[in-house]
Amino acid sequence: MIALDANGADRGAATVAEGGRSSGVPVRIFGPAAEIGAGADAVDAPVAITNEDEPARAVRARPDASLVQAAKAVAAGDCSAVVSAGPTGALMAASLFHLKRMKGVHRPAAAVLLPVPGRPTLLLDSGANVDVRSEYLVQWAYMGAMYMESVYGVERPRVGLLSNGSEAKKGTPEVVEANERLTGGQLNFVGNVEGGDIASPEIDVVVTDGFTGNVALKAVEGTAKVVTGALRDAVKSNPATLVGGLLLARRLGRMRRELSQDEVGGGIMLGLRGVAVAAHGDATAVGIANAVRLAQRAVDERTVERTEQALRAAGVLRSSEAAVSVASRDD
Amino acid sequence: MIALDANGADRGAATVAEGGRSSGVPVRIFGPAAEIGAGADAVDAPVAITNEDEPARAVRARPDASLVQAAKAVAAGDCSAVVSAGPTGALMAASLFHLKRMKGVHRPAAAVLLPVPGRPTLLLDSGANVDVRSEYLVQWAYMGAMYMESVYGVERPRVGLLSNGSEAKKGTPEVVEANERLTGGQLNFVGNVEGGDIASPEIDVVVTDGFTGNVALKAVEGTAKVVTGALRDAVKSNPATLVGGLLLARRLGRMRRELSQDEVGGGIMLGLRGVAVAAHGDATAVGIANAVRLAQRAVDERTVERTEQALRAAGVLRSSEAAVSVASRDD
Repeated sequence: MIALDANGADRGAATVAEGGRSSGVPVRIFGPAAEIGAGADAVDAPVAITNEDEPARAVRARPDASLVQAAKAVAAGDCSAVVSAGPTGALMAASLFHLKRMKGVHRPAAAVLLPVPGRPTLLLDSGANVDVRSEYLVQWAYMGAMYMESVYGVERPRVGLLSNGSEAKKGTPEVVEANERLTGGQLNFVGNVEGGDIASPEIDVVVTDGFTGNVALKAVEGTAKVVTGALRDAVKSNPATLVGGLLLARRLGRMRRELSQDEVGGGIMLGLRGVAVAAHGDATAVGIANAVRLAQRAVDERTVERTEQALRAAGVLRSSEAAVSVASRDD
Repeated sequence: MIALDANGADRGAATVAEGGRSSGVPVRIFGPAAEIGAGADAVDAPVAITNEDEPARAVRARPDASLVQAAKAVAAGDCSAVVSAGPTGALMAASLFHLKRMKGVHRPAAAVLLPVPGRPTLLLDSGANVDVRSEYLVQWAYMGAMYMESVYGVERPRVGLLSNGSEAKKGTPEVVEANERLTGGQLNFVGNVEGGDIASPEIDVVVTDGFTGNVALKAVEGTAKVVTGALRDAVKSNPATLVGGLLLARRLGRMRRELSQDEVGGGIMLGLRGVAVAAHGDATAVGIANAVRLAQRAVDERTVERTEQALRAAGVLRSSEAAVSVASRDD
């Protein structure tokens, strides 16, 4: 059973509820009853946390908020994962507060699958941690690789470290140090990659700080939108181009779907003791359904436990905590 | 007369020479005579600086390198600007060494016009300065605005500060501080902008550190390439789509040109006492010609002097140096 927060989504709670119910996965929906409907799968929780709120403070101050109730349902063992299309910062705060950080992990990261044609690329951190240390980047590299392996079946995922040049010495001191630590490790580490590699099918996991990651993610999304918009204008420019567009319609539709956030379902918070998925803020019901399925898949594939094992095997857990076993909550 | 470095370009010195000669602007070409040809406009300078070299060291160690000779020709007053398609770091180093930093400027920045459809956006720093302080960002905001005003005739350019959220409190400490300093200043400052705004026609100047700027620039370029590649595949998929592509060919061609680096000519180093333009590494002859014309326009529009005046008027020059007058070399 997935705990689904219906508040904070751009298209409203009814759309979230519709997405949850159509996902084919058992869900419990937390939101305003008037919009999400009644039933065994609905919990009336009208209080929301918005983008204007300071995430950690709001999560502490509003135990009745739908998001907090959803996270608590996971902590209590009633649900196996939490999904929200509300503010990502609030989801991270509620997850840290109730699902808890994995022992030995410095900072959980937000990971998103980029909506690019062909083989998808995972980007992390996509915005949760503005300031990073090289140890964070190293852990995220392993977390991202295990996620792609467990949930998407990618064998030996190719992991790159985002920098302003492919040479090992390029980048901030944190990036240079992380590159040194990852080189020769257990990962299929390809070294530094550049912004142009993000949308390329050559890389499976791109690791970066949350500031750069957020900018890069939105730059990719924004550019795809601008280019497809220019294409739409080109099609509409005269009768001949309209016919051309019609002949291409099916293929262009597929391309648009591949570029759509709805396809990838959402981001996932890695490094927690449970599964938390952030659906895109303006996700349609289809996008919400995909986010719910993604959460269920992470639960089924025991991503949390396998991530912890991978970090331990690589010897990159925080040393003071590495000896303490992690009790995974969601299986 | 523009000093054109023919070494270091992906397509070879002959392409650079061809671009220079076809630009309609008087050029002096520095490169291997065997490839650039002979004549009054050619200086035999076979020694190159490559991507493998440490820029500052190579510039100092090889006074006979074509790039260094080109920069020296500007310093000596024989030429009015330097253009190179070689390593940007080497161009910056040679410019700092021979053209010199503008008095009162903390760090010169590399600025590029993004190849997006519609009204173009200037991004700076695109990779010259990985570590920044808020004072650098503030100066770059003024430099970028004056460049768009002087060279592209944009009135009251809208300047945004790149961050991981549009709220003033979002971002690294440097970004938050720069936002405070720019708010209420003389610029048309729109506050923080996000990665998705880079490719948008709503912003004229996007200011960021060189690490994030490099990643964002390449992410935009890479995504445009991936999307147009997917479009090409769509057109080629069957006879009907081929006909559709033919009907759209003229419009798609225009779109491709708008997305091409060749159109924008190149990046410019701002904050120097002279004009230095970095053509794209894989520029065609057309791209080189546009880079040469861009350099000439910056000279004609007295961008260097006007930038210094704008920084002085805004009171953002380094205080210890602000009183010292700047002798502009290139007019």
